[in-house]
Amino acid sequence: MHKKLVLNVISRILLVVSLIMVLPLGWAVLDDPSSAESRSFIITILLGLAIVAVIRKFSPASGDDFDVMGAKDGLAIVGLSWIAVSLLGSLPFYLSGVAPTFTDAFFETVSGFTTTGATILTWIEGQPRGVLFWRSLTHWLGGMGIIVLSVALLPAIGRGAYALYRAEAPGPTAERVRPSMKETAKTLWTVYFILSAAEALLLLAGDMPLFDALCHTFGTMATGGFSTKNASIAAYGSYIQWVIVAFMFLAGCNFILHYQGLRGKVKSYWRSEEFRVYLTITLFFISLFTLVLGFGGEGFSESTVRQSAFQIVSILTTTGYTTVDFGLWPAFLKISLVILMFVGGCAGSTGGGMKVIRVYIALKTGAKSIIQVILPNAVMPLKIDSKPVSDTYVVRAAAYFIIYMFLFLFGTVAMTITESTDLVTAFGASVACLSNIGPGLGKVGAVENYAWISPAGKWILSFLMLAGRLELYSILILFVPDTWRK
Amino acid sequence: MHKKLVLNVISRILLVVSLIMVLPLGWAVLDDPSSAESRSFIITILLGLAIVAVIRKFSPASGDDFDVMGAKDGLAIVGLSWIAVSLLGSLPFYLSGVAPTFTDAFFETVSGFTTTGATILTWIEGQPRGVLFWRSLTHWLGGMGIIVLSVALLPAIGRGAYALYRAEAPGPTAERVRPSMKETAKTLWTVYFILSAAEALLLLAGDMPLFDALCHTFGTMATGGFSTKNASIAAYGSYIQWVIVAFMFLAGCNFILHYQGLRGKVKSYWRSEEFRVYLTITLFFISLFTLVLGFGGEGFSESTVRQSAFQIVSILTTTGYTTVDFGLWPAFLKISLVILMFVGGCAGSTGGGMKVIRVYIALKTGAKSIIQVILPNAVMPLKIDSKPVSDTYVVRAAAYFIIYMFLFLFGTVAMTITESTDLVTAFGASVACLSNIGPGLGKVGAVENYAWISPAGKWILSFLMLAGRLELYSILILFVPDTWRK
Repeated sequence: MHKKLVLNVISRILLVVSLIMVLPLGWAVLDDPSSAESRSFIITILLGLAIVAVIRKFSPASGDDFDVMGAKDGLAIVGLSWIAVSLLGSLPFYLSGVAPTFTDAFFETVSGFTTTGATILTWIEGQPRGVLFWRSLTHWLGGMGIIVLSVALLPAIGRGAYALYRAEAPGPTAERVRPSMKETAKTLWTVYFILSAAEALLLLAGDMPLFDALCHTFGTMATGGFSTKNASIAAYGSYIQWVIVAFMFLAGCNFILHYQGLRGKVKSYWRSEEFRVYLTITLFFISLFTLVLGFGGEGFSESTVRQSAFQIVSILTTTGYTTVDFGLWPAFLKISLVILMFVGGCAGSTGGGMKVIRVYIALKTGAKSIIQVILPNAVMPLKIDSKPVSDTYVVRAAAYFIIYMFLFLFGTVAMTITESTDLVTAFGASVACLSNIGPGLGKVGAVENYAWISPAGKWILSFLMLAGRLELYSILILFVPDTWRK
Repeated sequence: MHKKLVLNVISRILLVVSLIMVLPLGWAVLDDPSSAESRSFIITILLGLAIVAVIRKFSPASGDDFDVMGAKDGLAIVGLSWIAVSLLGSLPFYLSGVAPTFTDAFFETVSGFTTTGATILTWIEGQPRGVLFWRSLTHWLGGMGIIVLSVALLPAIGRGAYALYRAEAPGPTAERVRPSMKETAKTLWTVYFILSAAEALLLLAGDMPLFDALCHTFGTMATGGFSTKNASIAAYGSYIQWVIVAFMFLAGCNFILHYQGLRGKVKSYWRSEEFRVYLTITLFFISLFTLVLGFGGEGFSESTVRQSAFQIVSILTTTGYTTVDFGLWPAFLKISLVILMFVGGCAGSTGGGMKVIRVYIALKTGAKSIIQVILPNAVMPLKIDSKPVSDTYVVRAAAYFIIYMFLFLFGTVAMTITESTDLVTAFGASVACLSNIGPGLGKVGAVENYAWISPAGKWILSFLMLAGRLELYSILILFVPDTWRK
């Protein structure tokens, strides 16, 4: 690892985040310039800038220096800078007194940046607006990626940028839509911004106050899940709920498709096999849930369809907003939601989970192996978008699947130790954090929160959230001694 | 599929099973020749022989005819003959009135042959001995394989025998220890017989009655789990429990190692990487459980070590005997047991689960992928027993893993529908049947039984037990239309 280069890049990312914190500071100052909240943002921003200055002094680097950066540096930068940003970002929560301990502040910030949406706040409506704004903004920054944003905003850091993009982008492939990395990053953030603006306008049109509209837009487009209401989206009417369903679904699509869609190539959506699978899963489960709830006594009204659609899309895209307590639904619907928790959004979306494409490849591999037993000599290349998928790629997807399951089990086991809680809660907390969903089952269910979790449990869940958001490797390689060698 | 050949082979297997039923008939007649029990065995045996005669008449085949049999026929024969044998084998349970319905009788028989050990009997001590003997004997026959036994006993059925052996033998590879298939089958059954005799003698030496000693030997060596006592092995003292621990462990080893061990090549055990992993897992978890239980208030006595060792080895080898209600243990120990439920015994053992070797390859694949991220150009062949493992093989193991997980989820979802039970019970029943363990969690836990499950639930669990025992493919291909074409 090129330690000085890595530090230098991290300082650039800290700079971007420090400057962005001026926005929540603005809300805080508007409400009360002399509040503990306003002071906490000022202290954090100044501290951030001071750290940046110190690093830049001792680890200078520019232009061509970055050309030596390799995949290992890229992964380490992503892992370390997400930790650094989370540490800095948790200060306003801590200093303002919103989070009772630093552990809580860190958990909330990691939950925000990783777009998980698991909260330690038990009474959201009573919190100062600047901090709530920052809380939702961490979602939005983390959704498309803090590093992708930094690449877009800052002077180019050369070839190393691709290594960074690859390490932060969700999904097994990181396509470039434009020849240069900087252009790609700018394009993705532009698309993200346009969709966010559209959602915010539609929410405002539904008479949602500006503050709520912005916060919920951040939470939706990032597939995050932090709300400004204790009741989450159940606090709003039918129109608002449908708008949020639509944008959660869009946020779970590959943003490269949206880029092509905005340029008029609407057929691109249908040409993507992953999108077709994603759409099919969504529609199938909405129909299934509507039927089960309808025949189960809720009747066939707009409300039944809406509640099915809302919960399905929210869980599948790993957003985590809720409009009902699905913990009260029949066990069959609960286990179906658990399965969707592992699936997640599409590659290249802001959604978490294992991603539709990986699960789809896994199922195709399984089905193929059954047919090959019957026809052992048949040549059957596994194809996606009519292109053959190599064995190496399948092995890589399988390896991802295995590590994911291993981390999930690790989390479940750890929860049973640190919380001495029931299996369903342990299981729910582990998958909800690893897949960046937020609400799980049992005592971390739809209408519960993570305040009661022990400090050790919160640090372990923070680790799972980071590993899940950064596609495992960026965080895991920090534990391999070889990473730290020169 | 060569339908006539397939039918012919199935008739041979039915013949073997019909003749073996003379043994439980013997017990029944000794107790009371005129009982419903004795009559039920006589009827079943006669019916079995009649079916065999009819099939042989309409589907004659011999010697060279079998040379055309392919992998597809082998798999179909294994799948269909296990179903046929289970249907025939369930008659004594049904006709004697031990099982209240035919569904219960079929469930109990499948549970026996697949060495699962899940029971619908609520009061075991009150059942007639002939039926209990048959119940335990189904374990022993299914453990090493009914078809392998038939190949060993009957006139050779040529090259097709290897296809059968491959399809029935547990684990990803089916090694031959002797040049001919018939010799291999005889050798394996001889080793199985010798170890079983040794266990029976040791149990008799511990003052266990002959009937109990034979039944528990069948249950142990097959990693089955049916007992003749309501309290399972908790009904016996410390010496008996340790003997059973030792033989459960041996039954979970690859029997080819035992063959070599009996020929004096004791080093073979240590040379096998899978055995070393299996031993390490066993010792690690026994130590861990002893520590947790010891510090948790049970103290550090022989009893604590024994209870840890018994439950760990019983679950890991998928036997399912119990000496304590592990449902009352802390959640951390319960989740550890659940993880072991998926692992299972070694390839080529009588144990179920995914097999140690597949899980080990999966973990190695995961670990390798992390290192490859850091050192992308490193050439790192995945090795087992110092031999490289090809990508194709890893994909096949991954495919197996995926289908296993899919069936597990299918079972869990199905249980939530048919039983409207809690998630832990649904989850426990699904994994306990698929991995051929027997006791699960919740309402199918260590001191519970499967009597309360609905008929639909029992058929679904029977399907999972068969799919799990026959390594998925033999049962799954029966659902592929292409299998039934000529």
